Amino acid sequence: MSILDQINSPEDVKRLDDADLEILCRELRETVVNTTARTGGHLSSNLGVVELTVAIHRVFDTSRDRLLFDVGHQSYIHKLLTGRRERFDTLRSFGGISGFPKPSESVHDAFVAGHASSAVSTGLGMARARTLSGEDYSVIAVVGDGALAGGLTYEGLCDAGASPEPFIVVLNDNGMSIDKSVGGMALYLSRLRLRHGYIAFKNAYRRFMNRFSGGRWLYNIFHRIKQGVKEAVFNCSVFEDMGFMYIGPVDGHDIKALTAALKIARDARGPALVHVITKKGKGYQYAEANPDAFHGVRGFDPVTGVIPASGESFSTVFGDEISAIAATDRRVLAVTAAMPSGTGLSGFAAKYPDRFFDVGICEGHAASMIGGAAHRGCVPVFAVYSTFLQRSYDMLLQDIALGREHAVLAVDRAGLSGEDGETHQGSMDVSYLTSMPNMTVWSPASFSELRHMLRQAVETETGPVAVRYPKGSEGEYTAGGAVPTLRVREGGDFTVVTYGISVNTALKAAEDLKKRGIEVDIIKLGRIKPIDLGPIEESVRRTGRLLVLEETVKGGCIGQQLAAELAGRSVPIKTLILKNLGDRFIPQGTVDELRRMCGIDAVGVADAIAADVGILSNPGGEDGKDKT
Amino acid sequence: MSILDQINSPEDVKRLDDADLEILCRELRETVVNTTARTGGHLSSNLGVVELTVAIHRVFDTSRDRLLFDVGHQSYIHKLLTGRRERFDTLRSFGGISGFPKPSESVHDAFVAGHASSAVSTGLGMARARTLSGEDYSVIAVVGDGALAGGLTYEGLCDAGASPEPFIVVLNDNGMSIDKSVGGMALYLSRLRLRHGYIAFKNAYRRFMNRFSGGRWLYNIFHRIKQGVKEAVFNCSVFEDMGFMYIGPVDGHDIKALTAALKIARDARGPALVHVITKKGKGYQYAEANPDAFHGVRGFDPVTGVIPASGESFSTVFGDEISAIAATDRRVLAVTAAMPSGTGLSGFAAKYPDRFFDVGICEGHAASMIGGAAHRGCVPVFAVYSTFLQRSYDMLLQDIALGREHAVLAVDRAGLSGEDGETHQGSMDVSYLTSMPNMTVWSPASFSELRHMLRQAVETETGPVAVRYPKGSEGEYTAGGAVPTLRVREGGDFTVVTYGISVNTALKAAEDLKKRGIEVDIIKLGRIKPIDLGPIEESVRRTGRLLVLEETVKGGCIGQQLAAELAGRSVPIKTLILKNLGDRFIPQGTVDELRRMCGIDAVGVADAIAADVGILSNPGGEDGKDKT
Repeated sequence: MSILDQINSPEDVKRLDDADLEILCRELRETVVNTTARTGGHLSSNLGVVELTVAIHRVFDTSRDRLLFDVGHQSYIHKLLTGRRERFDTLRSFGGISGFPKPSESVHDAFVAGHASSAVSTGLGMARARTLSGEDYSVIAVVGDGALAGGLTYEGLCDAGASPEPFIVVLNDNGMSIDKSVGGMALYLSRLRLRHGYIAFKNAYRRFMNRFSGGRWLYNIFHRIKQGVKEAVFNCSVFEDMGFMYIGPVDGHDIKALTAALKIARDARGPALVHVITKKGKGYQYAEANPDAFHGVRGFDPVTGVIPASGESFSTVFGDEISAIAATDRRVLAVTAAMPSGTGLSGFAAKYPDRFFDVGICEGHAASMIGGAAHRGCVPVFAVYSTFLQRSYDMLLQDIALGREHAVLAVDRAGLSGEDGETHQGSMDVSYLTSMPNMTVWSPASFSELRHMLRQAVETETGPVAVRYPKGSEGEYTAGGAVPTLRVREGGDFTVVTYGISVNTALKAAEDLKKRGIEVDIIKLGRIKPIDLGPIEESVRRTGRLLVLEETVKGGCIGQQLAAELAGRSVPIKTLILKNLGDRFIPQGTVDELRRMCGIDAVGVADAIAADVGILSNPGGEDGKDKT
Repeated sequence: MSILDQINSPEDVKRLDDADLEILCRELRETVVNTTARTGGHLSSNLGVVELTVAIHRVFDTSRDRLLFDVGHQSYIHKLLTGRRERFDTLRSFGGISGFPKPSESVHDAFVAGHASSAVSTGLGMARARTLSGEDYSVIAVVGDGALAGGLTYEGLCDAGASPEPFIVVLNDNGMSIDKSVGGMALYLSRLRLRHGYIAFKNAYRRFMNRFSGGRWLYNIFHRIKQGVKEAVFNCSVFEDMGFMYIGPVDGHDIKALTAALKIARDARGPALVHVITKKGKGYQYAEANPDAFHGVRGFDPVTGVIPASGESFSTVFGDEISAIAATDRRVLAVTAAMPSGTGLSGFAAKYPDRFFDVGICEGHAASMIGGAAHRGCVPVFAVYSTFLQRSYDMLLQDIALGREHAVLAVDRAGLSGEDGETHQGSMDVSYLTSMPNMTVWSPASFSELRHMLRQAVETETGPVAVRYPKGSEGEYTAGGAVPTLRVREGGDFTVVTYGISVNTALKAAEDLKKRGIEVDIIKLGRIKPIDLGPIEESVRRTGRLLVLEETVKGGCIGQQLAAELAGRSVPIKTLILKNLGDRFIPQGTVDELRRMCGIDAVGVADAIAADVGILSNPGGEDGKDKT
């Protein structure tokens, strides 16, 4: 029996001796490699935090203490140690273990977290609630160095550092390469800081610093650096200037050192920051050699480390086409928020380095920055996942839409995105983009449409244009063009309006309904804002029945907009069926499973139409058609 | 003739001698004081940047160079110097001079700016566009120290500092109090830095620093501080570590010193930051003594400095009621993003300092922080203007709505807010809040309703609750309660659905229509999500005609949502009229002027209904009623 098999709760971790801990870490790595090889998921970051997570569970009790992971995809080890070992093979599957922390899954998961840079803020809120309610537990936020680039982390650190709340930030630093001499000095200082006298000094120092409010540290450091050499010994990081007790850097693969550092942080009487140096992909040679490839991976051969080549996708087609456009149009520049590969921009970056900008996990800045660039004659293209573009909401309005800046939003993973679950579905962009004045929104249904619409967005249109496309591949519908409204099937019994790859579902449902004697008129929107209403009005005036099929949340969906436009033109509607994701967050699963769950698969669409027309119980017959 | 009267373009400023410059500055202050005394506006910040703005116009040519003001409300002096002197008395009025930069108003205004912390990002985008298009002009972003607290500025500074782009950030620091000794040292260093050798050193240094990418500076500073004493002389601010050439601090009321510093920044071959110390309210004793009171002021006596007491408003009622609730409910905490006074929270802050949190201009952090606090048993109440809550969009979704955290959003200035114009109207919150799953949204129509709804939101409800209320005072409708749907007038000819203070407009229109023989059924929504549809359906089934009146943008409005719900229930609708702000940004003006412009005043509503019923040309008659 393995050591891991004996870990049923974190209490079991606390009992292990050094030798067993080493074995446990090896087994944890094996389990994560073998599981993600099959299920896909985030590998490199989890391999990097094995010892850190074990050390946290030796120092803290996460059934009481609140442990937050920033981003959250590095919580696999934590899950394996907190009673979810046996179900871990269901990782990221429908109804299975989530790839992110989830309070509904375990008392050991403190908060839902899927987007970067929020853990310091949410953790600080928890720490404040704890103190106000007179309770006593630790709050620990584990923050990656990528998340540190985000403005939200900066805002959280300023507030936390200026606050008296005991609160621990663990900076999981896997990006830093320390050269030998600097590293040696750092380790010396690290040891120095673990002494008791230093800690007492720091507590006093921190109280002193608390007199300054958040945001003031930028000035504080300016003045304090001039105070002399003692700074170089006693005040070793900008985090100190923000008000944190700084502990580190600590070797993130040394459980003993980690345990000692975390205990100091636990006993601090104010905010403390533990700086931990980890190696992404640690312990799995292929991930160590190529951590980016194994960051978010769809599956691979665990023995050879070979990742199957992924085929053509909307992302790769976007990347190819924007490179082609940029070849002849010098105005085009491309922007990503730390996802050059995921968004398909790697090729562009290699070809046009002077016109490529990776701004880090800073979607808000990306939006404002391209607003300025567009205002001065460039045509910036910001490639970003739908769910992450939510971070840019206000900047899209103020710095792009308001001035009608000609910036292009390439919104990837629009609609259902699958296994990453609630935090990652592209379920909001239709609502928020179409509500913004001056915005044009295209929704390609095929690779070819994406090419046409993107080119038109860059070359022909003015003002802000979003082109939103789904994760993965196109379906059977492969026609091209950039047509606002297109009738893709004719029929007189029922009008179906849809857009994007949902057109495949609509066409499939129509074939099924044809067998039941129902002829469906399908109108595909290429452009969902503004909508060319003419063909829809004509169709609904004929059929009197409308179903709107879309992969988006209910509030602000195209179906609601069409209902208002048609009623505003006094078009009689006997039946309106809105088929969308509903007014809810959508969990993890394959996209097909999720469509079935929401009733927006071909069966769901066909049955809804058939039930309305009254044929469901009478297949092939015509009699029930006019039940109303 | 005054000096100011002779300034028709910034070129005229360049010609003045020192004595005339001093007179000009005095005249500029007088003009701003006398104008804002009448029109209202932002006084203190504009008085603080008089010499800075003059100096900028002596060094740069803002018809070519691009000058951005962060937030933008400190652009009055700039406007007076750039050909808008004669129209300046129309400040903030309908069709008049905007209180913010506006490219459509003048070539000297580089970009629309109303929300804080975006100028570094938009300016960097402009600098990049300039270089990519082979042009040659300066880009200058003037950033206040308040805006520096925002995460967006941090993201922008990281990207700009790591970039090779020549780009000037002027840090307008009016919050810092330098004590004499530190100030003396700073001035010494400031002189030191103006020497040529230092500048050459800095240019080389910056190129060296550019090898590090954005976000890495937090590490850089950690290591570099240890390099020794020379840092204390040559590397004097965290901005240097981010990659900027740092120039300052400079006395912001000394035109000569400012001119010298700005010239150095202009000639730098990369990003430069000029740190300017200014005094808010400078030159007007009442504003100097109480800069906060004159920050955004509605009008005052310029001679005595007396600001008329403002009466009861939704903000003050909110402040009183949340204090009253907190007196008996220990779970309640209150949060503001740098607006304790504007949101009515000053009293709460004084009474419950341990439960009051001002996080600075960090709306994103505020939302995530209260999500964490709510998760641990507090009931946090975030009081925030509708337009600024846009910054929290993703955090509301991920950290509050997703986990059904019981946090309360007190959304002030919801709907039209008037004179601040496009950037400040509360025109989006209905769309974005009602599209969020798990969100409950209340919209009080009176002070009493606000009290009831707020108390219910805190005491009775679970999950996230927004209570959105307008700027200013209630109208004739003063009834109380927290009722989801309420029929406030009975009639059989036309159904009007509305919410919030628009109910006053609806009632007034109904009285007018009664004279024309039309009886309107008015249903007032207290809760706009979820909507209690029953009474609306009943009414529309009777009247067949529906008008939905609301102060919100068209996309995602309640009217669209109702149209879909009613059609989904096969309710026949002969007429649907949506009366809202339309699909556009709304300019400045009084709220009444803007309502008239949008056709959502009583006349607009009554005429629309009368026209539909066919009575418009036949007042008092009944004949045309059934024209359809």
